[in-house]
Amino acid sequence: MSSTVWTQARRAARMNPSIIREILKVTEKPGVLSMAGGLPSSDTFPVDALKAACDTVLSKNAKEALQYAASEGFAPLREWVAERVKALGMNISPDQVLITSGSQQGLDLVGKILCDQGVPVAVETPTYLGALQAFTPYEPNFTSLETDEGGVRPEAFGRLAHDAPGTRFAYLLPNYQNPTGRVMSLERREAVMAAAKAAGVPVVEDNPYGDLWFDEAPPPALASLWPEGTIYLGSFSKVLTPGFRLGFLIAPKELYPKFLQAKQAADLHTPGFNQRVVHEVVKNGFLDQHVPKIRAIYKANRDAMAEGLRKHLPEGCEWQSPKGGMFFWIRLPEGFDAMALLPLAVEAGIAFVPGAAFYAQSPDPRTMRLSFVTLTPELIADGIAILGKVLREAMAVVDEPTP
Amino acid sequence: MSSTVWTQARRAARMNPSIIREILKVTEKPGVLSMAGGLPSSDTFPVDALKAACDTVLSKNAKEALQYAASEGFAPLREWVAERVKALGMNISPDQVLITSGSQQGLDLVGKILCDQGVPVAVETPTYLGALQAFTPYEPNFTSLETDEGGVRPEAFGRLAHDAPGTRFAYLLPNYQNPTGRVMSLERREAVMAAAKAAGVPVVEDNPYGDLWFDEAPPPALASLWPEGTIYLGSFSKVLTPGFRLGFLIAPKELYPKFLQAKQAADLHTPGFNQRVVHEVVKNGFLDQHVPKIRAIYKANRDAMAEGLRKHLPEGCEWQSPKGGMFFWIRLPEGFDAMALLPLAVEAGIAFVPGAAFYAQSPDPRTMRLSFVTLTPELIADGIAILGKVLREAMAVVDEPTP
Repeated sequence: MSSTVWTQARRAARMNPSIIREILKVTEKPGVLSMAGGLPSSDTFPVDALKAACDTVLSKNAKEALQYAASEGFAPLREWVAERVKALGMNISPDQVLITSGSQQGLDLVGKILCDQGVPVAVETPTYLGALQAFTPYEPNFTSLETDEGGVRPEAFGRLAHDAPGTRFAYLLPNYQNPTGRVMSLERREAVMAAAKAAGVPVVEDNPYGDLWFDEAPPPALASLWPEGTIYLGSFSKVLTPGFRLGFLIAPKELYPKFLQAKQAADLHTPGFNQRVVHEVVKNGFLDQHVPKIRAIYKANRDAMAEGLRKHLPEGCEWQSPKGGMFFWIRLPEGFDAMALLPLAVEAGIAFVPGAAFYAQSPDPRTMRLSFVTLTPELIADGIAILGKVLREAMAVVDEPTP
Repeated sequence: MSSTVWTQARRAARMNPSIIREILKVTEKPGVLSMAGGLPSSDTFPVDALKAACDTVLSKNAKEALQYAASEGFAPLREWVAERVKALGMNISPDQVLITSGSQQGLDLVGKILCDQGVPVAVETPTYLGALQAFTPYEPNFTSLETDEGGVRPEAFGRLAHDAPGTRFAYLLPNYQNPTGRVMSLERREAVMAAAKAAGVPVVEDNPYGDLWFDEAPPPALASLWPEGTIYLGSFSKVLTPGFRLGFLIAPKELYPKFLQAKQAADLHTPGFNQRVVHEVVKNGFLDQHVPKIRAIYKANRDAMAEGLRKHLPEGCEWQSPKGGMFFWIRLPEGFDAMALLPLAVEAGIAFVPGAAFYAQSPDPRTMRLSFVTLTPELIADGIAILGKVLREAMAVVDEPTP
């Protein structure tokens, strides 16, 4: 009876369990050094500042903080965001800021407002798996944009008219991309946004990692180069805490009312308490002191991983040292399959995410993603030594002549 | 350029600004006594308990509370929910509980998992506007279930096979329904669920107000009568605080994985911090002391409004005194239009929501919803006196012979 009474939506049939979710389950074994998840180091969470802010909000504005609130978000936080993104070259009004329940919700709202069944959406190759998951229920056809180590290639936009006419938008992560870690140069940004504009393909810019630079800040936001053609997504998860689920979406004025309606239908509003607490923490420049500390920790971790990879990875592996963010992206020599290697690696005591999970189409089985933000430099060194051993052993097998 | 570069989804074209939102804007004038919004009395928010719980969580479990967390929700809170709903006759496993960002998100996930374009969804007449807003983007065809003062009529289910074949589910609010305030008797519940089962139409049961009873607890949940054919939605907004945006969804086991996938894509997870704080507050029976206080306040408010209505409303107005919840539902005499009256009422100093907003089809222009939980008994008395005056003046105009 029960299996016939529930008919699911066509769209639900397309939803599949997250590959990462399955992978993380496999890797959650005691004693395994995990470089799989994208969890920020919990040592960076500003516990004392948050505790003081909770106390202040509940002492001074409890009734307002605990009541239903505006779907747009807490006005002073929206103003803070509008001011903050000036440093990225963006000149926007607080009226364009929608506070979201993490930037993942921004992706869901983008899917709801912009995706239709069978209509193309262009994504980088590879790209953030969570975005594919957020858009998939709305049934777009994903089309892959050609990329190189500088990010998406401008020519890719010109080809969309032929390969994927009517592309609704291009989803881009210009800063320390998940999963590749790469950053787009200013020249590339200008060429890409000019090409997007010429092709009439607007852009959804996702920027969770932009603050996590090591030596120099990344170039201005894509949104600064084509403001009326770009939706910008930001997050407090990497600079403060993911546990408050706080992000924001900046929409061109003509689109804002639709996002607001979708937001209201989705969850009425993001918790007003959380918004007030975070505003209390950030309003007087806290991030200017706090984020440099996160950068220093992650830079030391990055260095430890870079050194380990140089020491331990067998010849033929390819990677670049990221200039910010959270991830190394490794390409293994021909014949390797990172997914097949994962159980061996977990058995040996380390975990990574096979890169195939991050492709909308034509996955490259030789790729893997390593996070350097969860473990300490010492454990990273240990973990990479183990990874090197696993790869060298696998290589021996790969190189063995077939009998 | 910008107006051509953004092509919205077909579904976005169906999203309209919330009527209530527009109405609340009209009514937000200084000095206006608002009985329009469904805001719980902020005097009932347990500020001290929440403050202590924030402190405990950030002192004892800060790293876990501030980190990314499971999409299913905080395990001890899921266990608490499974235990709590036993009082409603529900015997479920914590594995069936999904913590949501308010029960509004539960409605959005129901839409995503179960609604398809053109496929019927049955709703009460009238029903909660926020549910219509949550389902609408997924493009169902709403079909109205016949109701009387005892709630939805069992015969309505038998007619669905003819009038709306393939109805995906029926959305029902058995306890102190928004907007009518009515509660379904045990006999009616049994008849309705038997009819639903016989018709093969599963049920989505929304229960935000069930704890707000005045003289006796409502009968068992609909979900207790047909567990494998019912999705149940609950909320902490009315018994604790709406500002934490915390609700839950209980799904039949076969559907749970799809809800989990949809939840993960929507916002990864509900804030772990909020879940731990609320669990800290409720885990040792706090609600057993706290909710009776809310009931006592709301009951006194209900009494004040009932008395005011008896005294001041002109003959021909119909209403019932609700046995719980937050709302009175008034039907005005023939010839009245609540929407047309609203500006006059606001001018005179009070606000309500015209009932037409709550109908999926064929709105009844003579209806209005009055909330009794936001104002004090004294202000309710003042407000209803003003409403009576506005209605009597309007009646004089309605009764005037056309020249």
